[in-house]
Amino acid sequence: MQGRTHNCGELRLENAGQEVRLVGWYENIRKVSKNLGFLILRDFYGTTQIVVETEEIMDQLSELNYESTIQVDGVVRERSSKNAKLPTGDIEVVPTKIEVLGKCRYNELPFQINHSKEADENIRLKYRYLDLRNPEVKGKIVLRSKIVADLRQSMTAHDFMEITTPILTCSSPEGARDYLVPSRNHPGKFYALPQAPQQFKQLLMASGFDRYFQIAPCFRDEDARADRSPGEFYQLDMEMAFASQEDVFAVLEDVLPPIFSKYGIYKEASKPPFKRIPYLEAMDKYGSDKPDLRISLLVQDATEVLADCGFGPFEGKTVKAIIAPEFKGTRKVIDKLCADVEVQSGQKAYWFRLDEKMELVGGISKFLQDKKDAVVAALGLKAGDFVGLTAGDLKTAQKTAGVLRKMLGASSDAYMKKDCYEFCWIVDFPMYEIGEESGELEFCHNPFSMPQGGLDALENQNPLDILAYQYDLVCNGVELSSGAVRNHDPEIMVKAFNIVGLGEEDVKAKFPAMYNAFCYGAPPHAGIAPGVDRMVMLIAGEESIREIIPFPMNKNAQDVMMGAPAEVEERQLRDVHIQIVKEEKEKTEE
Amino acid sequence: MQGRTHNCGELRLENAGQEVRLVGWYENIRKVSKNLGFLILRDFYGTTQIVVETEEIMDQLSELNYESTIQVDGVVRERSSKNAKLPTGDIEVVPTKIEVLGKCRYNELPFQINHSKEADENIRLKYRYLDLRNPEVKGKIVLRSKIVADLRQSMTAHDFMEITTPILTCSSPEGARDYLVPSRNHPGKFYALPQAPQQFKQLLMASGFDRYFQIAPCFRDEDARADRSPGEFYQLDMEMAFASQEDVFAVLEDVLPPIFSKYGIYKEASKPPFKRIPYLEAMDKYGSDKPDLRISLLVQDATEVLADCGFGPFEGKTVKAIIAPEFKGTRKVIDKLCADVEVQSGQKAYWFRLDEKMELVGGISKFLQDKKDAVVAALGLKAGDFVGLTAGDLKTAQKTAGVLRKMLGASSDAYMKKDCYEFCWIVDFPMYEIGEESGELEFCHNPFSMPQGGLDALENQNPLDILAYQYDLVCNGVELSSGAVRNHDPEIMVKAFNIVGLGEEDVKAKFPAMYNAFCYGAPPHAGIAPGVDRMVMLIAGEESIREIIPFPMNKNAQDVMMGAPAEVEERQLRDVHIQIVKEEKEKTEE
Repeated sequence: MQGRTHNCGELRLENAGQEVRLVGWYENIRKVSKNLGFLILRDFYGTTQIVVETEEIMDQLSELNYESTIQVDGVVRERSSKNAKLPTGDIEVVPTKIEVLGKCRYNELPFQINHSKEADENIRLKYRYLDLRNPEVKGKIVLRSKIVADLRQSMTAHDFMEITTPILTCSSPEGARDYLVPSRNHPGKFYALPQAPQQFKQLLMASGFDRYFQIAPCFRDEDARADRSPGEFYQLDMEMAFASQEDVFAVLEDVLPPIFSKYGIYKEASKPPFKRIPYLEAMDKYGSDKPDLRISLLVQDATEVLADCGFGPFEGKTVKAIIAPEFKGTRKVIDKLCADVEVQSGQKAYWFRLDEKMELVGGISKFLQDKKDAVVAALGLKAGDFVGLTAGDLKTAQKTAGVLRKMLGASSDAYMKKDCYEFCWIVDFPMYEIGEESGELEFCHNPFSMPQGGLDALENQNPLDILAYQYDLVCNGVELSSGAVRNHDPEIMVKAFNIVGLGEEDVKAKFPAMYNAFCYGAPPHAGIAPGVDRMVMLIAGEESIREIIPFPMNKNAQDVMMGAPAEVEERQLRDVHIQIVKEEKEKTEE
Repeated sequence: MQGRTHNCGELRLENAGQEVRLVGWYENIRKVSKNLGFLILRDFYGTTQIVVETEEIMDQLSELNYESTIQVDGVVRERSSKNAKLPTGDIEVVPTKIEVLGKCRYNELPFQINHSKEADENIRLKYRYLDLRNPEVKGKIVLRSKIVADLRQSMTAHDFMEITTPILTCSSPEGARDYLVPSRNHPGKFYALPQAPQQFKQLLMASGFDRYFQIAPCFRDEDARADRSPGEFYQLDMEMAFASQEDVFAVLEDVLPPIFSKYGIYKEASKPPFKRIPYLEAMDKYGSDKPDLRISLLVQDATEVLADCGFGPFEGKTVKAIIAPEFKGTRKVIDKLCADVEVQSGQKAYWFRLDEKMELVGGISKFLQDKKDAVVAALGLKAGDFVGLTAGDLKTAQKTAGVLRKMLGASSDAYMKKDCYEFCWIVDFPMYEIGEESGELEFCHNPFSMPQGGLDALENQNPLDILAYQYDLVCNGVELSSGAVRNHDPEIMVKAFNIVGLGEEDVKAKFPAMYNAFCYGAPPHAGIAPGVDRMVMLIAGEESIREIIPFPMNKNAQDVMMGAPAEVEERQLRDVHIQIVKEEKEKTEE
């Protein structure tokens, strides 16, 4: 086959008069008469109108199903009625010959290509190759590919080297559930797919590599969530030797915003440096450790002025307030807001207003009339202010206020500048906490993060006061990643474990290779691993993770197109020394 | 920590007088006196000499083990005796303060870092993080990373989009052994890791993508070979829609040579177009379908003139000759050559010479004296020519000659221009062959390649005469990949299967998703997937695949550093509905 001369998105007015060869999918034809029809030819790059003007070709096409692939030889002509919306809308091609390249056998498709997003999800996934022919669906996959290519180029430009770490590795003692892979050469033993290349990247640091990154496939055998596909996902995994928290921040502050603003539904992204918010301040001001900074509303403490106002639910509790100026919501809107907060947080929200006449009205206002001036003064209220309230122990009041803040923010453009990407770093997470279930001292986040103040802090401070070099990257209220300065010093590591009643053997047991490596001299190092899927979702403005994955599994962890998972032959199981446990047997065993 | 001001490969004469902070590994110290020592500080970027001139720092260092990480604050000074071999050899740093960042606990290491390649392989792999500190070992991993980054950039520049295909997918009915992953949600069912993204890339073509590539992880549960690591390997997987064989060739001819000549041990690589050699011609002229074109020697047919010369092993056989002009090998060398050919091919090689006096001498020459003129004329011999010979049925004679050609070639620079990368395409593979075991018509290579001549050829030609659009990419005698124009037409596919006695059901059974997709209108498409590991080996000039993988498994499919594969907890097996079959039980079952 001699190839196409142009693709279907390429021809312009200046091509008029040229003989061309186009190839693509026969999207449809509008038949005007037995010797006139307007055919849409589609390929990866666009569509071109083909004007059939002979009965012979009309007859040939009438026997052909839509979605067949064809080759069109013809002449480019200026259109009499141009279509300004289409890049090729100035021209049409008059075919001299059409050749069929790949017949579509079916007269009816499972769904209309250009409306595939309306089809049932399982049908879409089963016929993903038809779904992807829809330019809107395909566009998200193209977007993902471009984002990942740009991330790679930018990381390389920042002197990071991409190093590929093993996919067949060993099971982790902690974290999520592993995918297991039985070994053939070692009966009874198993590989596991990595939940993240965490250990390998730290081993690379101990090996003397300086700036590592990887668009890394990660695997967790967990059930699907809106923002997590079952099975595999990707992260922009990175680690830097001899580096501080600020070094890590500087790289991502440089790498991410240009890519978000270039490809995003919003064209504006935070400029460096991103806001750094200590964890306790985030909980206090935003009621969340992943605040959406596009929302201007802040949480205030109202305990002193409101706890003893006589309203039962406030009594002896921490009370948090969010003041929404000029709030226009009706009573119905307010009730809905409070109900939504309760659904999401499990806690009630309360409210009152200061009306234009400077009267406290609505909600719990009757409990406040006595101390109106104190309330107005303490909260700094102005006429027209709406005050949303939450109560409980400190954390509960904060978290509920965080939910209320998000909902109030979303309710009005006055409280939220929607069209931008607002990044921030949450820093200074506590190293230890009292476990809710155990009532004992536990690691708060990651036991392998470096405590601020190092050995000295561990030896001399109250554990609950020790902060970790542990940070989260947040964008528009979505946590993109946790990261940390790692604890690279076996001595500090053992001490950190001692505090929660564990010892060197426990450190070793968790990550033997890494611990051994650190005993041979490791550099201080720090890193992070923003989720690629989540970033692409934010950039694309997509709510479903399946829209940004080329061949996603369904919510039930099945690839319905390929038929995975599937039964395998007995011989395959024998090769790897396993057998299937039947349902009944499993029950007896338990 | 305030960071380093420079890395260890960076300081030059113009930095003399500056106060600097360096960080890195304490490689060693040459103690001259109690207050003078020369310390080598090493990081990812290089080494810098630190001249300790105080007793205090000498004392501090004497308590520190080599391979600890340290931070050196000091002043740069011009060296009195410069080291031209070292980029930083013009300067030294005189420390004012040294701080320990990460202690190495051990006084003795499993091996000397800079001589790690001499250590036992299992020890190297167990302490891979120390092995990788050896700049020579690390260099290969850096090289790999650069090659892969350049491959990606070049493919992107050629308008290819990288699309990541699933790693958890389903078991293939054919090919190598799959790695299985038991499913938790679907008891008794299994995912499999992909042996290659072949089906997915063809599905992408049917989905309307135009130019796809991926640095694709592939998994085969096969035993290790010199050029194949057990477990996972990577290929530069690519596929093009509406494309011919020549389109695929043009891309790789553009992409590969610049990368080979940029990073390779040889600085010269084939220019496009690469030589195209039909399979039958390759077997005839080179005795191999992966000829090393750096060797100038060719195989000639000598059957007519030699088969009936009276030498028993030639009688009734095909005889192949390779003429090596001015061959200087002694009798001992020749005997060794023939013995080596026999070891590698299982077949004997024979020889004679035409000496300077134009006499046939040595080897089987006594059988040829009668017809000397005919022999000289038929083979076009000149004084000083050595003639190597092989015999057998056509294929055997060819293959043995191929082995002899390689060995003769390697024996002298006169026959081989070693210092370059010679690429070629082997084309026109037969579609069918008579199976050696079955004696029946079988697919020769890939049943899903497009037969040349399409349906017409299948219907009207002798199957054994039909060629396929099937090609191999070869470099310096190493097969980098097979590729093909795919059979995208279900009708031609079924016909191709009919010829070997199979039907539509068999096609469907093998690759249901792909076959279904092709029934909805597919574009003609073609692709290839050069092995990344093999390319890196060629470029690096490495014989062992483990040298070009960051964390390789050993030959026994174990990661001895991480301890994979490993035993897992009973609960993990229960979660995925499997149990281990004990060795005894397995035997009874078989």
